[in-house]
Amino acid sequence: MTERTATETTTAAATSASELRVAVLGARGRMGSEAAQAVRRADGLQLVAELDHEDSLEVLVAADAQVVIDFTVPSVTEHNVRFAVEHGIHCVVGTTGWDHEALDRTRALLARHPGVGVLIAPNFSIGAVLAMRFSAQAARFFESVEIVELHHPDKVDAPSGTAARTAALVGEARRAAGVGPSPDATEQDPDGARGALVDDVRVHSVRLRGLVAHQETLLGSLGEQLTIRHDSFDRVSFMSGVVLGVRQVVSHPGLTHGLDDYLDLGL
Amino acid sequence: MTERTATETTTAAATSASELRVAVLGARGRMGSEAAQAVRRADGLQLVAELDHEDSLEVLVAADAQVVIDFTVPSVTEHNVRFAVEHGIHCVVGTTGWDHEALDRTRALLARHPGVGVLIAPNFSIGAVLAMRFSAQAARFFESVEIVELHHPDKVDAPSGTAARTAALVGEARRAAGVGPSPDATEQDPDGARGALVDDVRVHSVRLRGLVAHQETLLGSLGEQLTIRHDSFDRVSFMSGVVLGVRQVVSHPGLTHGLDDYLDLGL
Amino acid sequence: MTERTATETTTAAATSASELRVAVLGARGRMGSEAAQAVRRADGLQLVAELDHEDSLEVLVAADAQVVIDFTVPSVTEHNVRFAVEHGIHCVVGTTGWDHEALDRTRALLARHPGVGVLIAPNFSIGAVLAMRFSAQAARFFESVEIVELHHPDKVDAPSGTAARTAALVGEARRAAGVGPSPDATEQDPDGARGALVDDVRVHSVRLRGLVAHQETLLGSLGEQLTIRHDSFDRVSFMSGVVLGVRQVVSHPGLTHGLDDYLDLGL
Amino acid sequence: MTERTATETTTAAATSASELRVAVLGARGRMGSEAAQAVRRADGLQLVAELDHEDSLEVLVAADAQVVIDFTVPSVTEHNVRFAVEHGIHCVVGTTGWDHEALDRTRALLARHPGVGVLIAPNFSIGAVLAMRFSAQAARFFESVEIVELHHPDKVDAPSGTAARTAALVGEARRAAGVGPSPDATEQDPDGARGALVDDVRVHSVRLRGLVAHQETLLGSLGEQLTIRHDSFDRVSFMSGVVLGVRQVVSHPGLTHGLDDYLDLGL
Repeated sequence: MTERTATETTTAAATSASELRVAVLGARGRMGSEAAQAVRRADGLQLVAELDHEDSLEVLVAADAQVVIDFTVPSVTEHNVRFAVEHGIHCVVGTTGWDHEALDRTRALLARHPGVGVLIAPNFSIGAVLAMRFSAQAARFFESVEIVELHHPDKVDAPSGTAARTAALVGEARRAAGVGPSPDATEQDPDGARGALVDDVRVHSVRLRGLVAHQETLLGSLGEQLTIRHDSFDRVSFMSGVVLGVRQVVSHPGLTHGLDDYLDLGL
Repeated sequence: MTERTATETTTAAATSASELRVAVLGARGRMGSEAAQAVRRADGLQLVAELDHEDSLEVLVAADAQVVIDFTVPSVTEHNVRFAVEHGIHCVVGTTGWDHEALDRTRALLARHPGVGVLIAPNFSIGAVLAMRFSAQAARFFESVEIVELHHPDKVDAPSGTAARTAALVGEARRAAGVGPSPDATEQDPDGARGALVDDVRVHSVRLRGLVAHQETLLGSLGEQLTIRHDSFDRVSFMSGVVLGVRQVVSHPGLTHGLDDYLDLGL
Repeated sequence: MTERTATETTTAAATSASELRVAVLGARGRMGSEAAQAVRRADGLQLVAELDHEDSLEVLVAADAQVVIDFTVPSVTEHNVRFAVEHGIHCVVGTTGWDHEALDRTRALLARHPGVGVLIAPNFSIGAVLAMRFSAQAARFFESVEIVELHHPDKVDAPSGTAARTAALVGEARRAAGVGPSPDATEQDPDGARGALVDDVRVHSVRLRGLVAHQETLLGSLGEQLTIRHDSFDRVSFMSGVVLGVRQVVSHPGLTHGLDDYLDLGL
Repeated sequence: MTERTATETTTAAATSASELRVAVLGARGRMGSEAAQAVRRADGLQLVAELDHEDSLEVLVAADAQVVIDFTVPSVTEHNVRFAVEHGIHCVVGTTGWDHEALDRTRALLARHPGVGVLIAPNFSIGAVLAMRFSAQAARFFESVEIVELHHPDKVDAPSGTAARTAALVGEARRAAGVGPSPDATEQDPDGARGALVDDVRVHSVRLRGLVAHQETLLGSLGEQLTIRHDSFDRVSFMSGVVLGVRQVVSHPGLTHGLDDYLDLGL
């Protein structure tokens, strides 16, 4: 038994030399526990610590973590990132609540720690990020663009944040290309069937039992339509984005906002 | 040549004995001209007259029409139908503008002409009629129902008449079965992304260049979704409904409102 | 404690007078355990026994079950049903493997127990049953019909049983109406892109990670398309059909094959 | 009147100084006549000649054309391009039949005429080009990819050329990224429901009356799906691509194969 344990330890040590050492903050939350599991399964990643709100951040240092994944709460996430950066640990952050001031403070901090990378991503679903990107790229080539988002009926806000963000990107791309708003001859719409206007783009919110999170960008010109649809059936779908973030953050020093830049979609 | 023409005439006469003799009113309009062409192509139908607004209705009698198709204008359609019924000619009517009073007057007229049938249909697309019917039939089995209609951007009203009618049928079916409104936890919707509420059913109107007329009924329950979608790419799609109407009206005396009753969908 | 238990028993007894007493066979299996949970949640149903393969069927009698739900295995399901019917207990059966002979034997058995109802349903998803029904009803009105089914990539057979059944119903409806096969000018298809031909209906099977069980019936005529799509995201979707079956079986004596007859879709 | 005509002529002359002078070859064909009409409607383009097969190419020179659009036939298109290039006229070519040898000869010719641009595009639908591009870009991020193409039932080959090209691009992108084939546990598929395998990508061909040309790329991973769909309802949809090609070819000397490079999608 002793010998066998020793062998195992040696193997683990040998492996850890080439594997990335990853810790998870907020490891008992829904997203954090999924992230820990995803790290365990991913080739080349080693889960070295799982912390929750009562644990000291010093554990990250003791565990010699190279990357920390933060799925905590808005009130502590910036503090966590500061601690990690000051200890040379890269960060992949899925916690919401980062405003412009917090992002600027983190940029300033990273300027003093030039080798460290921080990824702050509002959406870790690679599919959702691609859908937004493609919608923005295609927007200027079509006369009309509208967005339909569909979610479970327990959602309290409409439209969804992703739909609003997509509309903003589409609107920006069209203005940059000198394309005007989508044509619309509507004169009578007493009950508001035409939905919301967000950055000059119509957005429609459907709420349906059985659904999770779905979105369609509809683009139309004379004689043709292009539809880009993303379906999230389960939050496990975010995990391939988290793992991709962990692998890439170590070679992307400074602050990266949004997963897009890691997808390397350029030509 | 003379002999050959004579032969042809004989053949035509022989054929007409078993074929249904059909006239079109409004034959130079968009729908009327399509209807005339559809009659020409249909097996068992013979086009015997094409009238437009300057022609006398007496032509119908002279041509010995058995069925008249009316695609005229609201101001004359009831007059046309009265003339036809009084002359024993069945009617298939696609002209809009028939209110309750006009329908009641026509019912009273038909009571005095018991062998004559009149079909007044707001929509001759068999696909659209089936989509409405199926939506209403399925409505009580699902927790949530919403409707998305999509049209070309030159349409002046929202929602479409078909969508409003579908919502009414769905709402009625749910109330009859004691099913409450679809669940909706929305608290914040500053720009009206949730669309119109028609008979307790959410209706969303998309306007997109390249489209013609399209509609989806989305029905959802825990773990599942049923979608019924109809696409009209061209008004030629109405013509199979018109031809079906012509064939059936001769065996359906009295007033029929809507194509549904001719589709014989019962079990 | 004693007093409290007594009170509870009294309440349960009072309730059971108006509630339907339901037992589940195969209660530790995936479907059986979902069914037990669905019965617990449903208004008007009381779960009185949960049996698995080591339990004696006499428990059903001791528990005074009125309806038994069978989600067991093909080798024992007929035996279970016979026991239940002979003891005057109605049956709702989701177990597969019922061939014509087994169905005939059960019909004969029920003839000797005229008050008892048995529902044997290959598919308890109300949405899937409606999608099949609507596909069959619409089939004769369109020139073309094809079916696309989409499932997770661990499925070993193609096409799915539901798709094959839908194709059979569609093909039957078209032949009954004298409608020929869908037009198809394909001359070159070296790799079999046109899919399978099942009862004269083309069926296409897509396998995609992330999906569960989905099916589209596509119907097309000149200028229009009708699409009937059903998505199963989770097997919980079968449970509303199971509960509906339990509620209806007590008033449907004899053998019913398929959930359709309980949906009361007639006009 | 005379004065007014003179003024108009002056205006026209003034305008033509800043407008691009465009000629159409094959101007009486379906695509050529649409192209001529599109040029007439487009801002900044002036239609200076419409030629068909009996016309001499010298007309291009006489009309002082700057760009020629070729929608002719495979047997003459290379000859037309050579004439144009040798006379310093840019070319936008939609005629099929360009093999590697013809493309190489044209490259060599253009090397001797360095200021002239030639665009040869198998597909002028911007939507179709974007759908192919996005499919290829997304392909390496998903575990599964399949393609469904849907066309009118008079099409003689399956799968469509666009679907085969999309599959090739998707397959290439996945191999380049080291992503293996999509998972597929199918063991029983007696009738070929799983469709064609093109470059390791499953392709399904649907034929349905009422449709024109449609394609979906379905991409799936654990818990999510991305769908990229393009619908061509009418060949008028090709014309925005033709106009874009005309505008861009003058600043893209040399041979460009495919519209992609003009779309400037890089980040």
